[in-house]
Amino acid sequence: MLDGEQYRKSLDDGRVIYFEGARVPDLAEHPLLGRAVDTVADGYDHWYDPREDARNPLTNVSASSADLQAMLPLFDEADGLLNLTYQTIMCLLTASSRIGDSDAPYPARMAAYVRDLQANDLRSALCITDAKGNRSLPPLRQEDPDAYLRVVDRRPDGVVIRGAKLHITAGALAHDFLVMPTKAMKPGEEDYAICCSVPIGSPGVSVVCRTSAARVEDTRDFPVSRDGVLSEGFVIFDDVFVPNDRIFLDGEVEHAAVFAHSLGLWERLKALTFMADDADVLVGLAQLIADANGLTRVPHIREKINDIIIYATLVRSGLLAAVSSSKVTPEGVAVPDECFTNAAKFYGAENYAVMVRHLHDIAGGSVVTAPSMADFDNAEIGPLVEKYMATGSGVTGRYRTALMHAIRDLTADTYGGHNAVIQLQAGGGLHAQRLVTRKHYDMAGAKRRALERTRLEAPASA
Amino acid sequence: MLDGEQYRKSLDDGRVIYFEGARVPDLAEHPLLGRAVDTVADGYDHWYDPREDARNPLTNVSASSADLQAMLPLFDEADGLLNLTYQTIMCLLTASSRIGDSDAPYPARMAAYVRDLQANDLRSALCITDAKGNRSLPPLRQEDPDAYLRVVDRRPDGVVIRGAKLHITAGALAHDFLVMPTKAMKPGEEDYAICCSVPIGSPGVSVVCRTSAARVEDTRDFPVSRDGVLSEGFVIFDDVFVPNDRIFLDGEVEHAAVFAHSLGLWERLKALTFMADDADVLVGLAQLIADANGLTRVPHIREKINDIIIYATLVRSGLLAAVSSSKVTPEGVAVPDECFTNAAKFYGAENYAVMVRHLHDIAGGSVVTAPSMADFDNAEIGPLVEKYMATGSGVTGRYRTALMHAIRDLTADTYGGHNAVIQLQAGGGLHAQRLVTRKHYDMAGAKRRALERTRLEAPASA
Amino acid sequence: MLDGEQYRKSLDDGRVIYFEGARVPDLAEHPLLGRAVDTVADGYDHWYDPREDARNPLTNVSASSADLQAMLPLFDEADGLLNLTYQTIMCLLTASSRIGDSDAPYPARMAAYVRDLQANDLRSALCITDAKGNRSLPPLRQEDPDAYLRVVDRRPDGVVIRGAKLHITAGALAHDFLVMPTKAMKPGEEDYAICCSVPIGSPGVSVVCRTSAARVEDTRDFPVSRDGVLSEGFVIFDDVFVPNDRIFLDGEVEHAAVFAHSLGLWERLKALTFMADDADVLVGLAQLIADANGLTRVPHIREKINDIIIYATLVRSGLLAAVSSSKVTPEGVAVPDECFTNAAKFYGAENYAVMVRHLHDIAGGSVVTAPSMADFDNAEIGPLVEKYMATGSGVTGRYRTALMHAIRDLTADTYGGHNAVIQLQAGGGLHAQRLVTRKHYDMAGAKRRALERTRLEAPASA
Amino acid sequence: MLDGEQYRKSLDDGRVIYFEGARVPDLAEHPLLGRAVDTVADGYDHWYDPREDARNPLTNVSASSADLQAMLPLFDEADGLLNLTYQTIMCLLTASSRIGDSDAPYPARMAAYVRDLQANDLRSALCITDAKGNRSLPPLRQEDPDAYLRVVDRRPDGVVIRGAKLHITAGALAHDFLVMPTKAMKPGEEDYAICCSVPIGSPGVSVVCRTSAARVEDTRDFPVSRDGVLSEGFVIFDDVFVPNDRIFLDGEVEHAAVFAHSLGLWERLKALTFMADDADVLVGLAQLIADANGLTRVPHIREKINDIIIYATLVRSGLLAAVSSSKVTPEGVAVPDECFTNAAKFYGAENYAVMVRHLHDIAGGSVVTAPSMADFDNAEIGPLVEKYMATGSGVTGRYRTALMHAIRDLTADTYGGHNAVIQLQAGGGLHAQRLVTRKHYDMAGAKRRALERTRLEAPASA
Repeated sequence: MLDGEQYRKSLDDGRVIYFEGARVPDLAEHPLLGRAVDTVADGYDHWYDPREDARNPLTNVSASSADLQAMLPLFDEADGLLNLTYQTIMCLLTASSRIGDSDAPYPARMAAYVRDLQANDLRSALCITDAKGNRSLPPLRQEDPDAYLRVVDRRPDGVVIRGAKLHITAGALAHDFLVMPTKAMKPGEEDYAICCSVPIGSPGVSVVCRTSAARVEDTRDFPVSRDGVLSEGFVIFDDVFVPNDRIFLDGEVEHAAVFAHSLGLWERLKALTFMADDADVLVGLAQLIADANGLTRVPHIREKINDIIIYATLVRSGLLAAVSSSKVTPEGVAVPDECFTNAAKFYGAENYAVMVRHLHDIAGGSVVTAPSMADFDNAEIGPLVEKYMATGSGVTGRYRTALMHAIRDLTADTYGGHNAVIQLQAGGGLHAQRLVTRKHYDMAGAKRRALERTRLEAPASA
Repeated sequence: MLDGEQYRKSLDDGRVIYFEGARVPDLAEHPLLGRAVDTVADGYDHWYDPREDARNPLTNVSASSADLQAMLPLFDEADGLLNLTYQTIMCLLTASSRIGDSDAPYPARMAAYVRDLQANDLRSALCITDAKGNRSLPPLRQEDPDAYLRVVDRRPDGVVIRGAKLHITAGALAHDFLVMPTKAMKPGEEDYAICCSVPIGSPGVSVVCRTSAARVEDTRDFPVSRDGVLSEGFVIFDDVFVPNDRIFLDGEVEHAAVFAHSLGLWERLKALTFMADDADVLVGLAQLIADANGLTRVPHIREKINDIIIYATLVRSGLLAAVSSSKVTPEGVAVPDECFTNAAKFYGAENYAVMVRHLHDIAGGSVVTAPSMADFDNAEIGPLVEKYMATGSGVTGRYRTALMHAIRDLTADTYGGHNAVIQLQAGGGLHAQRLVTRKHYDMAGAKRRALERTRLEAPASA
Repeated sequence: MLDGEQYRKSLDDGRVIYFEGARVPDLAEHPLLGRAVDTVADGYDHWYDPREDARNPLTNVSASSADLQAMLPLFDEADGLLNLTYQTIMCLLTASSRIGDSDAPYPARMAAYVRDLQANDLRSALCITDAKGNRSLPPLRQEDPDAYLRVVDRRPDGVVIRGAKLHITAGALAHDFLVMPTKAMKPGEEDYAICCSVPIGSPGVSVVCRTSAARVEDTRDFPVSRDGVLSEGFVIFDDVFVPNDRIFLDGEVEHAAVFAHSLGLWERLKALTFMADDADVLVGLAQLIADANGLTRVPHIREKINDIIIYATLVRSGLLAAVSSSKVTPEGVAVPDECFTNAAKFYGAENYAVMVRHLHDIAGGSVVTAPSMADFDNAEIGPLVEKYMATGSGVTGRYRTALMHAIRDLTADTYGGHNAVIQLQAGGGLHAQRLVTRKHYDMAGAKRRALERTRLEAPASA
Repeated sequence: MLDGEQYRKSLDDGRVIYFEGARVPDLAEHPLLGRAVDTVADGYDHWYDPREDARNPLTNVSASSADLQAMLPLFDEADGLLNLTYQTIMCLLTASSRIGDSDAPYPARMAAYVRDLQANDLRSALCITDAKGNRSLPPLRQEDPDAYLRVVDRRPDGVVIRGAKLHITAGALAHDFLVMPTKAMKPGEEDYAICCSVPIGSPGVSVVCRTSAARVEDTRDFPVSRDGVLSEGFVIFDDVFVPNDRIFLDGEVEHAAVFAHSLGLWERLKALTFMADDADVLVGLAQLIADANGLTRVPHIREKINDIIIYATLVRSGLLAAVSSSKVTPEGVAVPDECFTNAAKFYGAENYAVMVRHLHDIAGGSVVTAPSMADFDNAEIGPLVEKYMATGSGVTGRYRTALMHAIRDLTADTYGGHNAVIQLQAGGGLHAQRLVTRKHYDMAGAKRRALERTRLEAPASA
């Protein structure tokens, strides 16, 4: 296993990173992106185990519903990039099972690659969403044929790919990218049916970064986003060579969607876990600020907190139901229930904005107008700010103001806006989650139940 | 065990039943209420087992989460009165455990009464909600002290009770009533802290009935409510004597709420099961009518069906999470999780009206304007009605019209209105379910999680 | 003008009416449908003016926004069939203006027909929705070419039409039907582009009726639906001859949708007025039952009433904005704003179900379990029912129970279900209202405003 | 009238401003706050008219509903501080009318002060919300008696006040503060019933500022917040002397709430206008980004845009109804309808978060992951970023990316979070708007209408 220092060194692999118009010479030293490097490095230190055959527990495969249940707390314990690595592994194993036993070399390559990730303690980010051009047109009808990533050359030892992948969380921080088609492909679109793993330092790969990390020097006003925030990336593959053993699909259009679907399930399971935890955080913040404001017993405040409680409980019930209804694949991998996962993810994403509104309604305008923490340190104005932000009974102005900043940072500032969009879009937007829920819902059973309840005979046309 | 015929005979126990201003001389022969008797009698026949020690499987106690899970399908299989009997038993066992081991004679009496119900295959209905008078005043401040049921006399061999209980499903059909306080009581309100079991034929008991069963002679337009609908009752206890061995609480105000809370959980579990099934029925009807209308591929129709699918899936996930998180009491009774049960019940009740609206939106105005089934039989107009209600591809006008009546009967007519109110109010209205969810939610954990996520220290005031 | 008695006599015009499988020999004498006749006859008496040139004020045309505003209270004062007659007139005048000055004889015929309706004090019902067959197929691709009403023969003196029209409110009670295409038609569909007026007694016309009027003998439990409820009809045109002067469009496919669109606006204006009034009724009932239950000061009850208040206020603000933004056509007819009318109608229809849920939540289970009014008359049980339904401070059991029945009848029984579907579907379902709102919304203005606010230049592609 | 340069000079009045812990020596030169000064100065230049008796048109009083209607576009044209000045004037005139003709000197002082503001072209900010301490306790029961601003000394020539006022938009930029009680006061709370005007440079006044202006050097990624954003302030009155002619209420507790209520109406009218415009902006952005993404014809995208259209139309209908239903006071001031204003403001605030969610759902993850505008200028990566952000048909990557930044800046970043809280809290939170709507709703009329509709007699208890 690697420790944090070894991870930092591993970044010196020729990776090409841009930020706000300029090439980033040294990622770890960058004032904003460097904090994301720190977060990942801290993660390596946290999990480090010097024993030779040690491997990160979040790269393990769950063989049962109970195993998977036990894995959930690790999602929280791990940083975002380690979670992505877990999703990479689970995506490959789920896809491998769904593609089935074929003569193709892919299952063996996937298994070998998974072992490689585990053994070398590498981190992988996921490249799905294509540039897409005009969303209403298929790849071959785009003005620019590269709007979807594709194979532009085939050689005996591998393929050359070209295209861009969007919304790549931790894009600048990983060792490898798992690249896969963003959607199903049809006959004729073989060049677009490519799944492969690409080291970030490969010639032709560039990452254009963004971050929602706090930009203010005194970060006390940004208790959430001052660290721990990974960068987002726009990854460009400008004629990148991929050797054969890194290719997991090439041209089999009938399987093009399997990877994104497999990944989607694990992404949403992670998103659901995060959402369930965040929902509890919203409840906690709402109650803490209500306590601090002296509003604990006001009926409409209580009702709003109760709404968040019910939201949090329902999201968690979806997570629990999904995991407790896991199916184990023939290969021995416990896979959560698609229907419960997606329905709960949809519900959580659909209602997150309203829960944040409740929190803002409870907390009041000070969420965005409270003095900065630095104002408390000023000799002249500090004592007055403390006097007027305090609410009595031991609630200091400093604590209450810090709570306001926490709420703002989490829900009403750069990181908060980023978080709102991510809660909505992670694992696909609302529409996608609805479609997947429907796809896995037992519609035949529902029809049967409806006919029984109303004592009708099934129609001849059914 | 009793069979249906024996049940019918058992109704001849002197019970006093009123319906629309008149005394009902023979319940089984009543044109509307008699159909409810048929339903219960059919249930007896369904479960009948002639062996001496046989007992109804829905009177068994679940000893584990898995047992309880296995019990759920029986809720559907059983008629409403048998379900109430099950709830009576589970309420007594849960309450007995919550009251704890005391010197009081109550636990032994409850256990004996449960055995009695099981052994004699009796049915019990539940009497909770009091007349209540002015809802903003406690019992002792009411103009009429009988607004809450109370003990008006105490004798060595028992007590005399007076009051009325509302919304008593199957009130006219049961053998016994389990009577309990509707809410917590305070010192001074000892006379109102009474829980007991009362045979329906006891002198002083009257039941004033209502029904949402179909009143139309040709019941083909009422495929749901033409049978299976139990009556609702308003039960009056006009100085009714209750012997000591039927008294399960008398004056211990600190335990007054335990019975209603215990029952509430089991009522809501049943309601949740029914709601989850009904949600699937709504999906099925929506899809069947969309199919019959030729709207299967219309996007906004699909979106509405998808909404109902997500609703159905979330309600069921709450049910699953509640049961899989059951706790087993020291006495060996598996009790579902309060928080998941109540949150899902709240969500289901809150959104039921919108799901019905979706169904109406998909089905169209014919839900309330379609010709009656009898019109199809008319020699002159029948063929034209068939011609114009048909939609081609084998969808006959008769089938499609029957589907419209099914939707109307279930959701937009007497039974449908009744059902909507029941889905909302069963186990207490929305507010009650919110309060119970909050009561059982881990608020301390949520606060801790919020402080950790925002890296704040707990306030001195907490 | 006609009085009620003359209206009754006018029904003896050979009309062919069916109800639940049987021909209705005398509409006015029918136990259920006769009550609808009473309602219309009462309306005739109400407006009757013996002067020779008198005419019903609701057949007048508004020439300004203020005129139209002053017309609104007449909508409430008039029965449903008179409202439909008004809509017939306004539909024809609006359509006539939209079709514009052409050489066709239609405008003159429409004007003459409007004068005829006014002068002879006739009532007209509206026939729009076709049988439609498979909704995903156009008329010519239906299995049955009559799925949309069409011209099956053309003669020098008129045309012969065949088809059925659904959801025809007051279908059995009118003198004439205004028949129009349900949607836009395309070249090739000329036979379906037919608009005409047909007397109900014309050979070949049959009406198959339904009603949501109360069927119970003692109608005190049905204070809303015991009278005033019009029948719904399924009108069949089985090769009906229409003379030329009654034809308002025949084959001009480019104008096929104009009538339905013109009517839609006036239907929705009426529906919006009804909805705004009904919303106030929901507020009133909610407050009255909260008062009667002693819940006036309970916070969550107040919040729910406040929600209905805001709903009622918003629906009314849409109505006011629509009327105050009326445009006057070149012919001098004030036409309400489409965008405000449809948006408010959509909002009202979308949220009606939730407002009813609030009312049920406030009123409690007694909405469906309260004793019947007849129970109060019973010498034995009546006093006890009164005792326990009363809540003190002068709130009698009888009054409170009557209120419960009012709520049930209006929102949770046959009429209530019918009303819910009608509120949703009148003037087209939710989707249709959304589309019309969008069609009339100033999208170019919104884009311009967005670009200004964000200081972007308009894209080259726009 | 003053021009921009004169305004800048007027800031040199000894005002004491703090920002992030430090005293601000020169407001106009401050890198962040200076941009707000620019905005106000630009406003002065925009309206400047050199004629002697010229005065700003937004300080005029509307004498009729039509006048008020014509005033609305000026709200948009004016900067935020000028709007606050208008609200100051309207608040004083409305309050003066509501307090009525009394012997007190207040009406004359208010009139004189209004003339002073108009004549000298001054700007006033509004100080309402107190520090409040524990929100569940009244002023006199607070640990710190200064939690609500109060008179601490009375002198022949004026009073001395102490306290803090929160959420003071443009707090650092105005010339005067209009200070008023945040709520109704009771006998005994006379010291808290103080309304007065205070020049910002008065000894003892300090303003602690915050801003949501963009902090990034290259502001192309912040097209909305790069200028035009006013600062928020926390204003401390540390024993400030106020001369008699600036005192508009002092001790008359019965009138304490009049000022806040009067202001509330005008604040909400402004907020509603802003909300209606912003709603159109959301529609425009949603359509522009859907166009740019090639999603114009995708059904679920259209549905979401339609939802925003209906929202925008309803908010505007509330605004129109409020203004067209204005009442003119005896003093000749047209005052908008409270009920429509508050209901629409509530609806707009309640649903804003969901409309933003729709926009994010339509735009996709690029809202927070799109490359920065500077990346387009980079010689190496710029062309590739352009290639992959473009979507064909003339939609350049640069334009589409700028649109993404506009959406992010407006709705998902520092300014967006600030805006979301302000839309919710401006003029009081959701609960306050509900209460005011109810207060002005015609409840007696609703009860009467309910009784008529259900043919019930009014209860004896009513």
